[in-house]
Amino acid sequence: MERVCFTLHVKLDRLDEYVEDHKNVWSEVLEALTRSGWHNYSLFLNRKDGCLITYCEVDDFQKAMDAIAQEEASLRWQAKMVDYFVPVAGKKPADAFERFVEVFHLQ
Amino acid sequence: MERVCFTLHVKLDRLDEYVEDHKNVWSEVLEALTRSGWHNYSLFLNRKDGCLITYCEVDDFQKAMDAIAQEEASLRWQAKMVDYFVPVAGKKPADAFERFVEVFHLQ
Repeated sequence: MERVCFTLHVKLDRLDEYVEDHKNVWSEVLEALTRSGWHNYSLFLNRKDGCLITYCEVDDFQKAMDAIAQEEASLRWQAKMVDYFVPVAGKKPADAFERFVEVFHLQ
Repeated sequence: MERVCFTLHVKLDRLDEYVEDHKNVWSEVLEALTRSGWHNYSLFLNRKDGCLITYCEVDDFQKAMDAIAQEEASLRWQAKMVDYFVPVAGKKPADAFERFVEVFHLQ
């Protein structure tokens, strides 16, 4: 099992909308995530700078990424979310996250 | 159960030492963490800017913080770690982390 952690930045003037949307993520998106192997999935936000941390657990990150990219509801959701994120120069929105390396784990 | 996520910054010229130390965290520190209620505890590092993300699961964050602050081995470990972190003006080292707010969770 891989524990995955990465960051993105939410635009500071869109924080409230972003948080509000995540109180009611579409059920078909939740089902697609589970079906694609994403578990114990949390999003954490720092309202001061808009830094958003994703933490989740997957059997295989690349497989989980490939699987969710085939899910129509997830693609629609991501298309809506992309406006909330600060663009990263030279990267497509779907690749604009910064993955961190796990350096310690205690069960 | 609370899922806790916070950040600190490791000094860029100390990254290798920090990572090396975390390959062999003292067993008495691991035991103290478990005894104090810290579970599924991971550290994730971004080597580009030294940003360090802590993710862990606790029944009660304040109780887990109070409990670990009573553990002698953990205090010795923290005293060693503090030199690795970028100081935050106006904060004691033990309070220099930035806690994020969970805005979404999928089991």
